[in-house]
Amino acid sequence: MAPAKLLVDIHTHVYLPRYASMLRTRTSVPKIMSSLIDGKEQDRLLILDHEPSGGRPVGPQYWSRDEKIRFMDQHGISVSVVSTANPWLDFLPASQAQQLALELNADLEQYCSTGPTVTDSSIKRLYGFGLLPLVPEITTESLLDAVNQISESPHLKGLILGTRGLGKGLDDEALDPVWAAIEAAGLVAFLHPHYGVDVKAWGDKDNGHVLPLALGFPFETTTAATRLILSGVFDRFPNLRLLLAHSGGALPQLSSRLASCIDHDPVVASRLKHDARFYLGKLYLDAVAYGSEELGFVSEVLSRADRYETGNSSAVSPDRKIGSKRVLFGTDHPFFPPLKSTEKWQSVVDNLEAIDSVQGWTEEEKDGVRGANALSLFNIS
Amino acid sequence: MAPAKLLVDIHTHVYLPRYASMLRTRTSVPKIMSSLIDGKEQDRLLILDHEPSGGRPVGPQYWSRDEKIRFMDQHGISVSVVSTANPWLDFLPASQAQQLALELNADLEQYCSTGPTVTDSSIKRLYGFGLLPLVPEITTESLLDAVNQISESPHLKGLILGTRGLGKGLDDEALDPVWAAIEAAGLVAFLHPHYGVDVKAWGDKDNGHVLPLALGFPFETTTAATRLILSGVFDRFPNLRLLLAHSGGALPQLSSRLASCIDHDPVVASRLKHDARFYLGKLYLDAVAYGSEELGFVSEVLSRADRYETGNSSAVSPDRKIGSKRVLFGTDHPFFPPLKSTEKWQSVVDNLEAIDSVQGWTEEEKDGVRGANALSLFNIS
Repeated sequence: MAPAKLLVDIHTHVYLPRYASMLRTRTSVPKIMSSLIDGKEQDRLLILDHEPSGGRPVGPQYWSRDEKIRFMDQHGISVSVVSTANPWLDFLPASQAQQLALELNADLEQYCSTGPTVTDSSIKRLYGFGLLPLVPEITTESLLDAVNQISESPHLKGLILGTRGLGKGLDDEALDPVWAAIEAAGLVAFLHPHYGVDVKAWGDKDNGHVLPLALGFPFETTTAATRLILSGVFDRFPNLRLLLAHSGGALPQLSSRLASCIDHDPVVASRLKHDARFYLGKLYLDAVAYGSEELGFVSEVLSRADRYETGNSSAVSPDRKIGSKRVLFGTDHPFFPPLKSTEKWQSVVDNLEAIDSVQGWTEEEKDGVRGANALSLFNIS
Repeated sequence: MAPAKLLVDIHTHVYLPRYASMLRTRTSVPKIMSSLIDGKEQDRLLILDHEPSGGRPVGPQYWSRDEKIRFMDQHGISVSVVSTANPWLDFLPASQAQQLALELNADLEQYCSTGPTVTDSSIKRLYGFGLLPLVPEITTESLLDAVNQISESPHLKGLILGTRGLGKGLDDEALDPVWAAIEAAGLVAFLHPHYGVDVKAWGDKDNGHVLPLALGFPFETTTAATRLILSGVFDRFPNLRLLLAHSGGALPQLSSRLASCIDHDPVVASRLKHDARFYLGKLYLDAVAYGSEELGFVSEVLSRADRYETGNSSAVSPDRKIGSKRVLFGTDHPFFPPLKSTEKWQSVVDNLEAIDSVQGWTEEEKDGVRGANALSLFNIS
């Protein structure tokens, strides 16, 4: 099978056994707790404050590698680049976060390296995003140690991170040495939401998890990525490879408004080398958007980025094919399981159908989004 | 001049003299205050909490009809449908809000009716969105009185409203009689943001107004419109005409994710007659998005709505032309003034150029977005 035809899932989560054990010992969110439901012991996971319906049921799909492989086989996924699910280590004191990051990175390297290989190929079926101990009061040295550990782990291809940084967000200059190290190591930083926005925004009505997941998560990613742009991180680290969850949230649709707002604020505008839309061309986006119009649009927004480089006066219509090279299939497994047991998960089917239906992408771009772009980005061969 | 060729601005604000006077008497936000700047008296407007740089300079462009007409002439705008800028009456006690709504609606009717007419036409150059006293403790009767007043004012074509409703948001069933009255009167409800999201999301860095305006406003609109969808308002009032500011914020880009999240929550899903994306086809969006790719995309999302009607299994690619009929030019005047005095405002030029460059729209659709859609929606002839 030619690598270009492999289906590669770059947004797929795990709570490694060590992490799940730690969650079981906790008395506050995030935690895993056992409840008796209809007389049966049932593990439930609470990861968000104010989570409705007592959290979500969890089981081996969250920690078992066999279950991950089974899910991959069921959906024709050859390779997964696995990441710890939110909220990572955000809630831990610095010393514990530091130790657990190193242990979990070692665990994940082993999870991948001792796992199966793609048939007739040297490609493994599992690669990983490591973790940094991004918590308040951590030392820069500890962060750089973790970056270094990840870069020396052959099956770890990047790292996943939330939006809090050291407590002040990702636009904190104290993180500059970390961005520099990530850039130098050629690692991919996968930016993923957890906190959403203040729950008061959702009102009193019981809408289950819909509002925090459908809106809160993308708002958080959008805000974090925008703050990174405004802080000049992409000017200082032009080769930083940042992957945004959920197709960049709302950033693509709001990027021209963002550019206009910056244009009208001379202090902010003077700090940046380029129009805000230029920086979107530096991003990578997963294809977890559930709709072909959305995927076509985000690839168009990535494609137009060069038009907004300072000094470039081109006004040609963007070719979606260019931006598609930075869009990568993902499932968000084991979240969004189907309500009924079906052969395939609807959320995965929807995302694959969306890729297949994008106007302006040929089979080459679709194959890219399904797998070839990921193999290239993560240098997997 | 044929009406189809008129440029119509449906997103353009005013603080009527009566409203500006009230703001001058206030000691807390929102307020207009005079400061000495470089030895000159300068009015400054504070409308948001924590507003940076002591608010923004205001002058006659906010209250003078002559200034509005001058701005329109400068940009070739034939007709404006003017609305009071945020935060409307939200901050007032019920009795004051009630009285001021009626007075301001009468003022705005006069502002329009005594204004100029389009050359060689019976069309006025100014129409308006009235106000409702949407504040806690207001009676339904007071709200219906205001709807009735607006519907009987020949030059008021709708009403503008924020997202708070009676204090619990717009998904409050107590508003059902108001939606029913708006629907029955054929008025357009223009949903506009003011509150954004909790300022903690923006972090400590000084980014001026950029984050609350570029992200907070669209997030708020997105949340309010989503909560309306989830509450079943569009099922109960299928002919309600809701216009969303700033091209619907982030709702178009997040609508397939929203549909997926609803699909995975049987309680929420069972409340709604259709896939969430169906309801987007009931919306009207302004064209205040500053980019042609954004406009093309939002028109595509409106176009695909019928595909998501329960019972419809069509999978044809959406034709952007259909959705374009629900997209309408706006300027957001007098906000986003140019930094340098130029002949035309860059924000307006950008939005006109965006309309002119949308792929998949012919001149007919562009003329529609520039004016014909508005004349039709507001029944102006």
